[in-house]
Amino acid sequence: MSGERLIYLPLGGAGEIGMNAYVFGWGPPGQERLLVVDLGVTFGDMASTPGIDLILPDIAWLEERRDRIEGIVITHAHEDHVGALGLLWGRLRAPVHARPFTAAIARHKLDERGEIPAEALRIADPWPAQVEIGPFRVGFVPISHSIPESSGLVIDTPAGRIVHSADFKIDPDPVVGEPFDEDLWRSVGQGGVLALTCDSTNVFNAHEGRSESSLQGPIRDFVRACPGLVVATTFASNVGRLLTLARAAEEAGRSVCLLGRAMRRMVETATETGVLRGFPRSVSPEEAAEIPRENLFILATGSQGERRAATAQLAQNGFLGLSVQEGDTVLFSSSTIPGNERDVARLMNLFSERGVRVAGGEPNGRYHVSGHANRPDLERFHALLDPALVIPMHGEHRHLTEHARLAGEWGRRGVVVPNGALLEIGRDGTARIAEHVETGRTYLDGSGLIGALDGVVRDRLRMGMNGHLTVTLILDEDDRPLGEPWCEPLGLPARGRSGDLRETVEAEMEAFMNRAEARLLRDDERLEKELIRLARQVVQAEIGKKPEVTVVVSRLA
Amino acid sequence: MSGERLIYLPLGGAGEIGMNAYVFGWGPPGQERLLVVDLGVTFGDMASTPGIDLILPDIAWLEERRDRIEGIVITHAHEDHVGALGLLWGRLRAPVHARPFTAAIARHKLDERGEIPAEALRIADPWPAQVEIGPFRVGFVPISHSIPESSGLVIDTPAGRIVHSADFKIDPDPVVGEPFDEDLWRSVGQGGVLALTCDSTNVFNAHEGRSESSLQGPIRDFVRACPGLVVATTFASNVGRLLTLARAAEEAGRSVCLLGRAMRRMVETATETGVLRGFPRSVSPEEAAEIPRENLFILATGSQGERRAATAQLAQNGFLGLSVQEGDTVLFSSSTIPGNERDVARLMNLFSERGVRVAGGEPNGRYHVSGHANRPDLERFHALLDPALVIPMHGEHRHLTEHARLAGEWGRRGVVVPNGALLEIGRDGTARIAEHVETGRTYLDGSGLIGALDGVVRDRLRMGMNGHLTVTLILDEDDRPLGEPWCEPLGLPARGRSGDLRETVEAEMEAFMNRAEARLLRDDERLEKELIRLARQVVQAEIGKKPEVTVVVSRLA
Repeated sequence: MSGERLIYLPLGGAGEIGMNAYVFGWGPPGQERLLVVDLGVTFGDMASTPGIDLILPDIAWLEERRDRIEGIVITHAHEDHVGALGLLWGRLRAPVHARPFTAAIARHKLDERGEIPAEALRIADPWPAQVEIGPFRVGFVPISHSIPESSGLVIDTPAGRIVHSADFKIDPDPVVGEPFDEDLWRSVGQGGVLALTCDSTNVFNAHEGRSESSLQGPIRDFVRACPGLVVATTFASNVGRLLTLARAAEEAGRSVCLLGRAMRRMVETATETGVLRGFPRSVSPEEAAEIPRENLFILATGSQGERRAATAQLAQNGFLGLSVQEGDTVLFSSSTIPGNERDVARLMNLFSERGVRVAGGEPNGRYHVSGHANRPDLERFHALLDPALVIPMHGEHRHLTEHARLAGEWGRRGVVVPNGALLEIGRDGTARIAEHVETGRTYLDGSGLIGALDGVVRDRLRMGMNGHLTVTLILDEDDRPLGEPWCEPLGLPARGRSGDLRETVEAEMEAFMNRAEARLLRDDERLEKELIRLARQVVQAEIGKKPEVTVVVSRLA
Repeated sequence: MSGERLIYLPLGGAGEIGMNAYVFGWGPPGQERLLVVDLGVTFGDMASTPGIDLILPDIAWLEERRDRIEGIVITHAHEDHVGALGLLWGRLRAPVHARPFTAAIARHKLDERGEIPAEALRIADPWPAQVEIGPFRVGFVPISHSIPESSGLVIDTPAGRIVHSADFKIDPDPVVGEPFDEDLWRSVGQGGVLALTCDSTNVFNAHEGRSESSLQGPIRDFVRACPGLVVATTFASNVGRLLTLARAAEEAGRSVCLLGRAMRRMVETATETGVLRGFPRSVSPEEAAEIPRENLFILATGSQGERRAATAQLAQNGFLGLSVQEGDTVLFSSSTIPGNERDVARLMNLFSERGVRVAGGEPNGRYHVSGHANRPDLERFHALLDPALVIPMHGEHRHLTEHARLAGEWGRRGVVVPNGALLEIGRDGTARIAEHVETGRTYLDGSGLIGALDGVVRDRLRMGMNGHLTVTLILDEDDRPLGEPWCEPLGLPARGRSGDLRETVEAEMEAFMNRAEARLLRDDERLEKELIRLARQVVQAEIGKKPEVTVVVSRLA
C-alpha cells in the first residue's frame, strides 16, 4: 500500500463560517477515491455581493474528478452544510448519505433547486453502524448541536481513523435530539484517532457552553410576565428552541401560531421523522386572528432582520391578518450573525416605534445559547478523542489559527489548512500541505450561477458607488457628428457646480466632438475611450466623483 | 412672560447613535430664540447608502429660522457632534461656542470642509462660568468621556434649568481629561433641574461602567509579553487610551510610532492645548524602520477595518516602509461599531493569514472600555441631578424608549422625543409634543450635498442589485428603425438561458421593432416605456432578474 496516501482538502468552510465543503481522499496520488462531506452555502451582503442570492463553493476541482467521487455525506440540515446540494449535485452525481431528518430537509432543498433521483439519497443509520463509501467506512455519530440529528463522522481509512466533528456543542440536554454522550465519544476515540477535523466557530469564547435546556426557565418566566401579544423569533431549524418557546406559551395559556414557511416546515418534518414529539397543536393565522392577544403566541421566522420574513412584516403592516400594537412584546430568542447587526437593529426600532417592547438578541443573552462548542468544550472534546492531529475547520482564518494554537497548548499537533490547501496525512499523524488547489466562490445570481471573479459584481459595486452615465452619439456617412451627443445619468445628482449636470456634460461632449480630428472620429475604439475619459473627467469636476460610463457610437452606414 | 414657551427639538441623534443636532428655544410660539447643540455626522454603508461619504442632519427647519439662531454649542470633538459644522455653518452663520481643545479640532474640520470666520468661533470657559446666548445662560460642565474635555451643558432658561449630559460616562480616572466629579454634578442639580437630556447609548448594558484607567494594567502586561513588533489600533480621539498604550510601550522598552493623520493630529492638538501631558516622544516612520521590531510599537488608525487606514495597509502591503510579519502582534484596543463587523473580521483575518497574532476587539473585552454610561451609571446620574423630566437622546428609538422606561422605574417622568418632534416643556416639568417638524438626512456625495430622498441613492442601489442595460436605437425621417437596436449590459452575466445575453436581448428588440405599429414608433415616450418593459422581461426570462434599463431613441430629424 505504499504509494497510496490519505488527503484532506477543504473547498469551503476553512476561511469562513459557512459554505462548508470538505473532501477526503485515499489512493495513489492523483488517483485518490474521494469522499465529500457537506455542500453548503453562505450568504452575501450588499457591501460585497449586491444582488447575489447565495454563495456556493467553487467545485471545479471536484467536477474534474467526478468519476472518483464515491459519495457525499451530509452531517446535518443547516443551510451552510446542505444548502448547495440541490444546485451542485447535477455536476457531481454521487450518492448522498444522510440520516432521516437531514435527508428529508435535503429533499426539500433538492426539490426547490435542482434535481436528484430518489435512489441517490441514502438514509444512514447512526453509529455504531458504518457505511462503506469507497475505501472509507463512515459512521454517523450523534452529537448535540442547534438542530436535531446532527452527526459527527467516524471516517475509517486504511491509514487510520479520522473523526470529523461537524458542528457541535457539548450539551447533555438539547431538549430535542440526541444529547452529547461522553461515553460514546470516548469509545470512538479508543483504538486511536489519527486526525480530528473540528468545529472552530466559538474558539474565542472562553466560557463553558450553556445547555439548550438552561433556557427553559428564563423563557417560561419571560412569557408568563408578558401582557398583550407575544411574538418570538429564532432560527427556524432550532427545533429544540421552538419546543421550549411553544411549551412556555402553552404553560402561559397561549395558543401557538407558526408564521413563516421555514418554521412550519421544520416542525412538520421533525414531527414526521420522529425527532420531535409533544409539540403543542398550533393554530392557523386565521384562527389566531380570532384569539385575544393575551392568549396568543406567535413563533415567527426572521430573527436576522430579513426584510421579507414574518417578523419584519409584523413590524410593518402586519402579516396574514396579524399585527402588533402598543403593549405587545417581541422576543429575539437568537443571536445576531455578524453582518446582520444593522438589519436587526432596524427591525427592533420598527417595533419600538410602535410601542412594542423588544427583548433578547444580545450576545450571550438570557434567551439564546449558541450551538457551537466554546473553548473549554473544545479542550474537553480533544481530550476525549486524543487525536494525533487536530485540523481546525468551520471558521475564518483567525479561528483556525487560534484553534490550532489551542491544540498546541495541550501538546497536540494542530495544523491550519485553509480552503484549497491539500493536506497529506501520514499514518503517524504527520501532515504536510502538498498542493494548493484553485478554489473560490460561485454566486447564485437570479436563476444562474456565475463566478465570483467574472466581473459582474465588480461592475455592480462600481455603479452602486459611483452611478452610471450613458452617452450616445451618431456619426453620419462622412464620420461627422449628426446632431448632439445625448447623456442619460442614473444614480447621479441632478446638479453639479456649473448647474444641471446632464446639460453640462452634453455641452462638453459637443464641444469635444466639434473639435475632434477626423482620424479620431473614424476610430470607434479610440473615440469611445476618449469620450469615457472626458465624461468621467467632467462629472468629477462637477460633482467630485467618477461614474461608470457606457458610450454608444452609432454610425449611419 | 405667559405666552412664551420653552421648546426642545432634536434634528438628529434621537433615532440613531450619531448625527447629533439638538435645538432648544425660548420665546413666543413661532418666535423662539434658538440654541443649537452640536452638529454631527454619521457614516453610511454600502447596504443603504453606497457612495455616500457622510450623512448630515437635514437643517432646512433651522435654515428657515436663521435670524433666530443665537448660537451653536459644541459639547466635544467627536465626529458625530462636530463633523457637520464645516459643511453646514455657512447656512446658519451663528457664533460657535466650544472649549479650547474642541475648538481646535473644530477648526481643523472647518478648514477641511467649509469656512468660518475666526471671530465666529468663541472659546468657552468651564463651569461655573456661563455664557449668555440669547435668552439662555450656558455653562460647560466637565464630564468624563472617551475624548478629552467633553462637556455636559447647563442651559439656564427663563423656565428653569436644563441639563444636557452630552456623551458621558462616570469615570473617576479617565487618564487624560477631567474625571467625573460627583460633587460638582450634585451642585449643578441643587436648586432643581427641570429637564435632563441624556445619553442613551449604553442603556441596555446592565453592568457598571469600567474606568479608562482599569486598562492600564492589562495593556501593560499584554505589551510586555509580546515578541516581535506590536501594532495597536484604537479610536484616534481617545487620547487617554493613546497615552495608556504609549506608556505601556515605553515601559516595555519600545519606541512609539504614530501612523495615520488623525492619530498624529489628536496627539498634537491635545498637547498644544494642554490637555495631554507626558506623551512619550514618538518616532517617525523613517526612524521606526531602523528600529528592531521587538523595540517598536506602532499606534495606528483604522480599528474599524477602514480599508485605507494605516492598520489595513499594514495588513496588506505595508505602510510608509513598515510592515508586519509572522510573530508580530496586533492589538485592537477598541470595540467594533455595529455595522463594521465584517470589515473588522476581514482585517483580522488578513493579519492571521500573515501569521500575525490578533488580540482584542471583542465586546466588553480586556483592552477596551466604552465611553458611555451603562444602565447603573445612568441611574446614578439621574439621582444626582433629580430632574423633573428625563428626555433620552443619543440613541436609536429602542434606546430612547428603554431609557424613558428606566426613568419611570425611579418615579421620574421620561419622555421619548424622536427626531423632528418639537417638545414644549412646562415650568412644572410637564411636557407635550406640540408639533412634528419635517426632518431627514442630507448626504455628502463626492463634493456636493444631496437629499436622502432625491432618488440618487435609490437608483444606485437598484443598479447595484440588478445591473444596468443600455438600449439604443435610431429611427429615420419616416419613423422607421434604422439598423438594429444596440444593447450594452453592465453588471449582468454574459450568458442567459438561451446563450449570449446581449445577442438574445438585441434579437428580441429587433423583432419587436419590426412588428411595432407606426403609431408607437412616432411616440417617444410610449416607445421608450415599451422598450424598457420588454428589455426587463427578456432579461428576467434569461437570467432571473430585472435590470435597470436606459433607453435612448435617436431620430434623424
